[in-house]
Amino acid sequence: MNELLKNIVWNMSEVIPEERAGMLGQRGCVLWLTGLSGSGKSTIARALEKSLIQEKRLAYVLDGDNMRHGLNKDLGFTEKDRNENIRRIIEVSNLFADCGVICISAFISPFRAIREQAKQIIGPDRFFEIYLSTSLKICEQRDPKGLYKRARRGDIQSFTGIDSPYESPDHPDLRMDTETLSVDECVEPILSMLSAYQKK
Amino acid sequence: MNELLKNIVWNMSEVIPEERAGMLGQRGCVLWLTGLSGSGKSTIARALEKSLIQEKRLAYVLDGDNMRHGLNKDLGFTEKDRNENIRRIIEVSNLFADCGVICISAFISPFRAIREQAKQIIGPDRFFEIYLSTSLKICEQRDPKGLYKRARRGDIQSFTGIDSPYESPDHPDLRMDTETLSVDECVEPILSMLSAYQKK
Repeated sequence: MNELLKNIVWNMSEVIPEERAGMLGQRGCVLWLTGLSGSGKSTIARALEKSLIQEKRLAYVLDGDNMRHGLNKDLGFTEKDRNENIRRIIEVSNLFADCGVICISAFISPFRAIREQAKQIIGPDRFFEIYLSTSLKICEQRDPKGLYKRARRGDIQSFTGIDSPYESPDHPDLRMDTETLSVDECVEPILSMLSAYQKK
Repeated sequence: MNELLKNIVWNMSEVIPEERAGMLGQRGCVLWLTGLSGSGKSTIARALEKSLIQEKRLAYVLDGDNMRHGLNKDLGFTEKDRNENIRRIIEVSNLFADCGVICISAFISPFRAIREQAKQIIGPDRFFEIYLSTSLKICEQRDPKGLYKRARRGDIQSFTGIDSPYESPDHPDLRMDTETLSVDECVEPILSMLSAYQKK
């Protein structure tokens, strides 16, 4: 009976989000960077993360590098697998936001419906859509991973911008074109937006 | 040419783990709680998380509650799905440790091989195996979710402890029996172990 009693007395002492935010001095959220391959998502994500850590804010980048080689290494590039890839990313982003982290998720995420799903799962109040609107022409000129060349040759199917559409956000929280803006010029408005969110 | 030049100059400014640890005042790690259903994993995980947050250490619990309803909601309970369930949990735990968080992962994880895989993926230096050795008899008496009853009736197949084995850790970092120890008595040695790790 002792054990049963002990079990009943054991209650779940949940950490409430406010305690977490108070301890960290920040509220968790997701900065969702969307745009074509080569638009500058990863570069801006990393620069932003660096700035935030220097300001003693806890940020963490999710991108193809750490997702495709770990959690999502079982997935290929079929439509089904791409959907599952982004579904998992949304769920992991949500866990990081729950933890109190400023999660910077940098993925092409070409479809409006999936970005809307991200917003709903993560919560509209803590989800920020940042659209890197760099043109296909510039992205293809940069072609940092040689993917556009391969897509043009037909070696890659359903490549966003070539033979698969990119659906631009209608009302992104921020929109920036890395053709004309420097990295710092992109990071700055994101930091300002974040600052406003933290003060809310 | 301007754009191309800009692209080349844009370098990836990675946050090194030491900067992250310095900013947070802690090093990320994974506390892996393993044991039978009803052994007290979630209760200890939540109490531990609460203590750590109060000590201004950033901790976050991964357990069935937040994994099965989100990231892993597409998975059932076949052997294949259980393996995939735990594989994803390992990868997400690893991301949290990378972020600098003390990740408390509370899952039955009955097989030695999968716990060894967790240790290798996460890194042996920052992976701690905590074994809740509470006996089947006590766990079945507690039966907090009524799962043992359902397993005995045959409504649940391959239930750990009933018709599926639990392989005890040979050399856990900590071992505790919640039949004889209170929640605080379980949390305390984990905090001490963590303290030693943080000072290393």
